[in-house]
This record gives sequence, structure tokens and C-alpha cells, in this order.
Amino acid sequence: MNFTLTTLGTASALPTVNRYPSAHVLNVHERLFLIDCGEGCQMQLRRYGFSFLKINEIFITHVHGDHIFGLYGLLSTMSLLGRSADLYIYAPDTFSSILESLILHFGAQFKYQVIHKVVSGNLPQKIFDTKSVEVISFPLNHRTSCYGYYFKEKQPLRNVHKFLIEKYNLSLREIAILKGGTDVLRENGEVLLYDELTYTPYIPRSFAYCSDTAPFPQLEEWVRGVDLLYHEATFLEDNKKTAQLTYHSTAKNAATVAKNSGAKRLIIGHFSSRYKDLSLYEKEAKEIFSESYIAKEGIVIEIPVKK
Amino acid sequence: MNFTLTTLGTASALPTVNRYPSAHVLNVHERLFLIDCGEGCQMQLRRYGFSFLKINEIFITHVHGDHIFGLYGLLSTMSLLGRSADLYIYAPDTFSSILESLILHFGAQFKYQVIHKVVSGNLPQKIFDTKSVEVISFPLNHRTSCYGYYFKEKQPLRNVHKFLIEKYNLSLREIAILKGGTDVLRENGEVLLYDELTYTPYIPRSFAYCSDTAPFPQLEEWVRGVDLLYHEATFLEDNKKTAQLTYHSTAKNAATVAKNSGAKRLIIGHFSSRYKDLSLYEKEAKEIFSESYIAKEGIVIEIPVKK
Repeated sequence: MNFTLTTLGTASALPTVNRYPSAHVLNVHERLFLIDCGEGCQMQLRRYGFSFLKINEIFITHVHGDHIFGLYGLLSTMSLLGRSADLYIYAPDTFSSILESLILHFGAQFKYQVIHKVVSGNLPQKIFDTKSVEVISFPLNHRTSCYGYYFKEKQPLRNVHKFLIEKYNLSLREIAILKGGTDVLRENGEVLLYDELTYTPYIPRSFAYCSDTAPFPQLEEWVRGVDLLYHEATFLEDNKKTAQLTYHSTAKNAATVAKNSGAKRLIIGHFSSRYKDLSLYEKEAKEIFSESYIAKEGIVIEIPVKK
Repeated sequence: MNFTLTTLGTASALPTVNRYPSAHVLNVHERLFLIDCGEGCQMQLRRYGFSFLKINEIFITHVHGDHIFGLYGLLSTMSLLGRSADLYIYAPDTFSSILESLILHFGAQFKYQVIHKVVSGNLPQKIFDTKSVEVISFPLNHRTSCYGYYFKEKQPLRNVHKFLIEKYNLSLREIAILKGGTDVLRENGEVLLYDELTYTPYIPRSFAYCSDTAPFPQLEEWVRGVDLLYHEATFLEDNKKTAQLTYHSTAKNAATVAKNSGAKRLIIGHFSSRYKDLSLYEKEAKEIFSESYIAKEGIVIEIPVKK
């Protein structure tokens, strides 16, 4: 029951020799969600062993190059690998004309459809929903239309305790009734209570992704209680003014959101190339929120099953 | 007096963990020419220590993604680094609409002009000319309009031998006259002969770049006598049929061009991701042409000054 984030890129606008532009993979029960797709994303996916064909949904925060330039290569490679399944890209409306050009110039051989699901609105909205996971978009505060994404594992069906199956010699039909949420009345008058015989296999886990954004008050509410928060921290407090001017955050800003929203853990990334020593980010963030960590290419953060 | 090729990428359509798509830098007397610009090119330029601002000319062979997807990031980064100098991109006419889209979607902040110099024609043509170097384009035989580039150091002005400056106590004016190609007649009737007092400082060096192409007879003539020939070798002979179908070459094809054109050295690249062991390429090529070498990310090939 995987719920695991892998960071593929931690750079901001200017990549460095070791820092790739933004890209992350969230694995929820072996379904891979790609979040942002900076240049070199396809090579990072290979490096960390992800199958391109397991990616059916890509979530793009905004159309600045360091979040999308990897799409050209990735979509072309998917085609060369014989993809036929539809590919869904969640992105603001500003992405439409870019995708049109990409398909026009490079998509002649594509045997699959690329479907742009437009993300919009001033409030959080559910944009994706399956049996096991839902995704909620929420607007961020950047220089261009920009959205964060909140991935939530769904509340699972309750399971019947194994030892009670034996104790009560439950039939398959009785197990199905209990799993469906109903008590069982046996012919002999015996009542098997749903509440007593079943349990929740795990408590839903969650991940929220916030890049790029200047601080704004509603954000803490929108990611309240999240298990893992990714929040950009392009700058340190020594460049607070530049952060404000460019609608970005500092490590302190990110940690403040984590603290005030009741997040369990914070991971920061999108580092400006001007900083060589990333431990300064961690230091600044940990002063506000002790469960702060810096992202690194290839880092894997698992949120363990909670019972 | 540099004349040095650095390979940034050796992959063909599908990059691997260690093989970047096509990109190369030719340094001619500290002037940097970028040849092809596959995804990740800007990171490779950084990795191998090239200043982005020293690049004023980019030569694109054709508009397949593995040769141009790096332009999105590179041009954006040049802008972020404050570039104001014009940038010239030599490429077939098929590149025009791609560049237009790139500028439309990502060039709003560019403070520099990107000028597309259209490469065309069925015969070699001089497309670039300075005091020290000229570039000749020539058509290749690929699935889309595709051109190779032949870089030739120009014949330098002759220098005056230092020991003769002392011997004849030459004035600056006399040196200038001799360098200009004329004999000097002194007032005392003494004649200083241009042919005797001057020498050629170096013999011009040359590099030709051929990617992507199926073999065709004229190519050997068009790169005749080149010091260093880069020729794609996407396949080995075991995939000769696929090479033919996709208008590519095998290592044997590349080596045959090198041999028949009288090239001094051959470097092959653009390797299909299906081959893990690149020494097989070298083996196949060396059987035809002993001075064959395989390209590798970061490999630097200097053509030493010839006197």
C-alpha cells in the first residue's frame, strides 16, 4: 500500500550541474502521478526506475519553463515507446496553447491522446477521484496562474477481523454484508455487529504540493493536517525582498505554513542556484518547524501505513 | 589557438540514464559554436564549464526533438542570465514555426533577439564567415530536412620570423608591409623578401558534423580531407535494415565515409539505446577505419595546431 514521494528535481529557474528543475513522482498504491515536469525529467524517471507507461496523469502547477520543459521530451519518448493510452495533463488554462504547439510540431506520430484537464477557480476543487485517491487543486499566489495539488488517500472499506471469521465461521455472503456496512442477522437469531467484527485497515494518508507561491493566509487552511507538505523555498530570509518581488517563499515562510497548518512533515525544494549550501535552508526551516527536511534528487519519502 | 570538440550528448531518440541527446561544442579560438541542442544541453554546458554567454551561434541539423528540445531551457536561461546580444540559430526552414512558438510562449522577457538563419539547398554552401573560421552547410539524407556543417579554420596571415626581425632590425612599418604580403625595398637598396622572411603560423584545421543521415555518395566528396569527422552511427550492422528504414547509419557506414573521404579521425555518436556495450561500435568502425573513436559525454577532442 505505497504512498511515496520521489523527488526528481530541486532547482528553481536555473538548473545547476546536480540540481534538476522541478519534477516529482507520487506513488499511490502503484499508480504514479507525475507532478511538474522540468527539463531532464525523462532521464530522472529512468534514473530512479519509474516506468513511463505507468504514468497516466501529470499535474502541472504553472507554465514557467522550469516546470514544463521536460514535457517535450517525455511526451515524445512515450510515443516512441508505443504508448496508446490517453494521457491526462492537469494544468491551468495558460497551458492550452503550449500543448497545442507541442502537438502541432512534435505530435504527428503520437498514437495516443493528450488531454488537457483545465484547472481553475479561486477555491479548492476536487479534480480527480478514484476508489483509492482523490486530488484537490487550490490556487497559489504566483506571477502567473498557478495551482497546488492535495493528494488524499480515500477512506478504505472496513475489513473483517480474520480471527472472527474463524470464530463465527462466517460465510462469504456474511463477510460481504459486513464489509458493505451492515449487521448480519442469522437464522438462529444471532446478530453479528458490523462495528464489532470489522476494523479500518488504515487511516488515509495525504500529500500536498505547493510550488511556486508567495505566502497567503488561506493556504494554511487548504492544506490543514496534511501528512507530508511539499512547499517551495526558493530563498532564505536574507533574500526576503527578492522572494516577495518574485512571488516566491523563503524557508521560513514554508516552515510557517507547515507549522500553522498542522502538517506532520515538511519537505522544501525549488532552491535558488545562488545558494550552494542547502543545509542553511534546513536550519532556517527547523527553527520554525522541527519536522522540516530538504529535498534532494532521488530522495524517497514514504508515508507509512497508519492504523 | 584552440580547435576543440566537446561532446555533450551521445544518445539518439531515447536518452538513457548516462547518455544525453545530441549536443556538441566546437571551440575555435575561444569562440564557442553549439551544434545541436538536445534536452539537458544547458546542464551539460554547465557540467563541462562552458559560459553560456560565449555562445552566439547555434547550428541545428534538423527539427527532431532529440536535437532541439534543449533550446527551450537554454534560451530561457540565457535570458535569465541577462543576455542582450543577438543569438543566431542556423537551421532548416522547418525550424521557423518552432522558434516562433518558443518565443511566443516563453520569450516575453527576452532582452535579446533570436535570429533564425535559414539553411537550405542541395549543395554545400558557405553560411558563416569570419576572419578565422568559415562554416559550410551541406544536405544530409534523413527523414526530414537535415543539414551537416563543415567548420574550417581560415588560412592565417603569414608571420615574420622573430630571429629575422632581430637580424634585419625590422621596423614596425616593415613588419606590417611583410605581413601584408609585399617585399620591402629599403632606402639603401636592400630587398627583404616576403617569401623568405615570413612563414605560415599554422595549417588550417577542420571539423565536419554529420547527423542524422543514411549513406549517400556525395557525402564523401563534401567532407573530403577533414581533420575530424563526426558521423552518426545509430546502429550496428546487425540492425542495418532498421538503419535503412529510418534513414540512419551503422558504424560501418560511418567508417566507410571516413575512409573514402580521407578524414584523419572519426568520432561516432547518436547511439541507439538498444546497445549497452558501446565498444561494439568502435570494433565495427575500426575494422574499416582504424582512427575511429566512440563519443562519450564530456569527451574532449583537440585538433592540435599543425605547422
